[in-house]
Amino acid sequence: MEEVQLALGEASYTIHIGPGLLDNALLLRRYIRGQQVLVVTNTSIAPLYLGRIQASLAGLSVGVVILPDGEEFKTLASLDLVISGLLQGGHNRATTLIALGGGVVGDTTGFAAACYQRGVAFIQVPTTLLAQVDSSVGGKTAVNHPLGKNMIGAFHQPQAVLIDPQTLLTLPRRELVAGLAEVIKHGALADLAYLEWIEANIEDLLALDLEKMSYAIKRSCEIKASIVSQDEKELGARALLNFGHTFGHAIETGMGYGAWLHGEAVGTGMVMAAALSARLGLCSVADSKRLRRLVERAGLPIHAPSVLREQFLTLMGRDKKATDQGLRLVLLAALGHAKLVDNVSALDIQAIIDDASSRVAN
Amino acid sequence: MEEVQLALGEASYTIHIGPGLLDNALLLRRYIRGQQVLVVTNTSIAPLYLGRIQASLAGLSVGVVILPDGEEFKTLASLDLVISGLLQGGHNRATTLIALGGGVVGDTTGFAAACYQRGVAFIQVPTTLLAQVDSSVGGKTAVNHPLGKNMIGAFHQPQAVLIDPQTLLTLPRRELVAGLAEVIKHGALADLAYLEWIEANIEDLLALDLEKMSYAIKRSCEIKASIVSQDEKELGARALLNFGHTFGHAIETGMGYGAWLHGEAVGTGMVMAAALSARLGLCSVADSKRLRRLVERAGLPIHAPSVLREQFLTLMGRDKKATDQGLRLVLLAALGHAKLVDNVSALDIQAIIDDASSRVAN
Repeated sequence: MEEVQLALGEASYTIHIGPGLLDNALLLRRYIRGQQVLVVTNTSIAPLYLGRIQASLAGLSVGVVILPDGEEFKTLASLDLVISGLLQGGHNRATTLIALGGGVVGDTTGFAAACYQRGVAFIQVPTTLLAQVDSSVGGKTAVNHPLGKNMIGAFHQPQAVLIDPQTLLTLPRRELVAGLAEVIKHGALADLAYLEWIEANIEDLLALDLEKMSYAIKRSCEIKASIVSQDEKELGARALLNFGHTFGHAIETGMGYGAWLHGEAVGTGMVMAAALSARLGLCSVADSKRLRRLVERAGLPIHAPSVLREQFLTLMGRDKKATDQGLRLVLLAALGHAKLVDNVSALDIQAIIDDASSRVAN
Repeated sequence: MEEVQLALGEASYTIHIGPGLLDNALLLRRYIRGQQVLVVTNTSIAPLYLGRIQASLAGLSVGVVILPDGEEFKTLASLDLVISGLLQGGHNRATTLIALGGGVVGDTTGFAAACYQRGVAFIQVPTTLLAQVDSSVGGKTAVNHPLGKNMIGAFHQPQAVLIDPQTLLTLPRRELVAGLAEVIKHGALADLAYLEWIEANIEDLLALDLEKMSYAIKRSCEIKASIVSQDEKELGARALLNFGHTFGHAIETGMGYGAWLHGEAVGTGMVMAAALSARLGLCSVADSKRLRRLVERAGLPIHAPSVLREQFLTLMGRDKKATDQGLRLVLLAALGHAKLVDNVSALDIQAIIDDASSRVAN
């Protein structure tokens, strides 16, 4: 079993990565302080893994809330379902929530834990690649609003993150590919050597070589943990993790939740952000093309939906990285080195949107 | 103008108390960092004071959300209304929310500020006595759930609290009386001399002597600020502020939100908690009776609704002060000195419920 530490003072915690970890009752119980547990999962994951988690929790008072599956259910209504489950089960402040599922389950459950009685404990057990390398780590929790993604949320760190890479064996290929977008992102923004390793191993990752996948999960968690521990509340460095996300959120919001997977939108978003970086002379055109090629090899989309061309900038402006001073974006100084850039001109951004939208009818 | 400091490290802030403070544009603007403001108020307060706040905000980009008036609207649906107002107005992370109203507006707005984009600034401008002496101070924010009060919330401190006691001149008498319950609570739990001052001046407070009322607001804020600064997250001492609240919440929940005002339920709750303290030999019977007399002189109810007698204990158990170890209650060691007591026996509590419920048909 591999371990990655996330250092955050009293809120520090460990990310455990290992095949078969779902059945490790001893490890799971180490992070449960009271007698009450509420497992939150979804309709796709429950038949696969809920029974195994429940077996690991034998002897405790265990409630279950099963949400519908999909980004369109990352809502205040789902939050209400989790809170209702807690109240109907008489859960007190010593309870522990367990998020068993992907990013939607993790973000919703984490936010419920942040809000319930103004804050209770929770454990992340991510079952998608995207959740394992990104959303389960770092304590960002939220639900969506019809007018914007992740607009209602909290910073709330879990007690631990327990990652069993074997769960990827049941993950639909489209979601596996989407998760690789965040893996590529970590290399692109922080570690050229890691990006080169991904380039050399992308076929094995797509073929679910679990040894290589475990390495990618560990290295991605290390990069994310290091950045989060410097800047939990995203006042500075943590914003770098949003590389590709301002463009990506615009696609997700504009196309309606669920049409594009988050990772797919981030894939295209990274291609656009890299192209903008090259256009502004921040990185080389070669770096931009090299990133686009890797995104494409991973099976991710590299073109923006042309139907959004006119509203794309508006959709970006609504993203929460916007400030009074104009659009702030994460761009590339080089592969492996992202930087925050303020006051990016709307004309330059629109040029990238036009270019990225013109290549396909979509 | 009087000032009370709430010391909480980087989250420290000032409570300003002064007649006419609503029109003090300079003071208000001191706490607004960006260009965007969203004023949240309700249908009763908007016609009275919204125009004056807006005048003090001239030159800024000001949005308004007007909630329906009443505890039954302290819900996730109202939170959604505030968040929608922020998103429709394009508010970014530098925005400031202003809560203009009573506890429902303050708690809902504060929670919206805690959640919006994972946390933005807000200012409390409380217009009810209950909000001025209690709910606007200390950063507890929340909305209710049908199964329990304040079950969905966050600790989120305001930038400042601006209290204009003149707003009490338009407050319905029933709400003024309800607010006095929290004033009495502060004396009973922490300061016998203050309690004696309240006993000597209760008629003047009821007659809205603004000089004496300003003193009561200031002294209550001092007591609350002192306790909160020792224990922001309610891990210990802050629980003392819940004196009367476990009994009180049971009445509020059992009777349905809005049937009893929060302060009315706390009034009866304090009488019951004091009677239980005397029954357990923690304080004298004379202390218990003396507190009951003051609650009665303030015009607050001192009897529990007899229809709740059978379910009262269950309603108390669902309160969030419950722990794995059984019911924890705030009781009196003496007037002016509250203490946390664990494992209070259900039999003793039921005896108090029976006694408090038997005196009136209700």
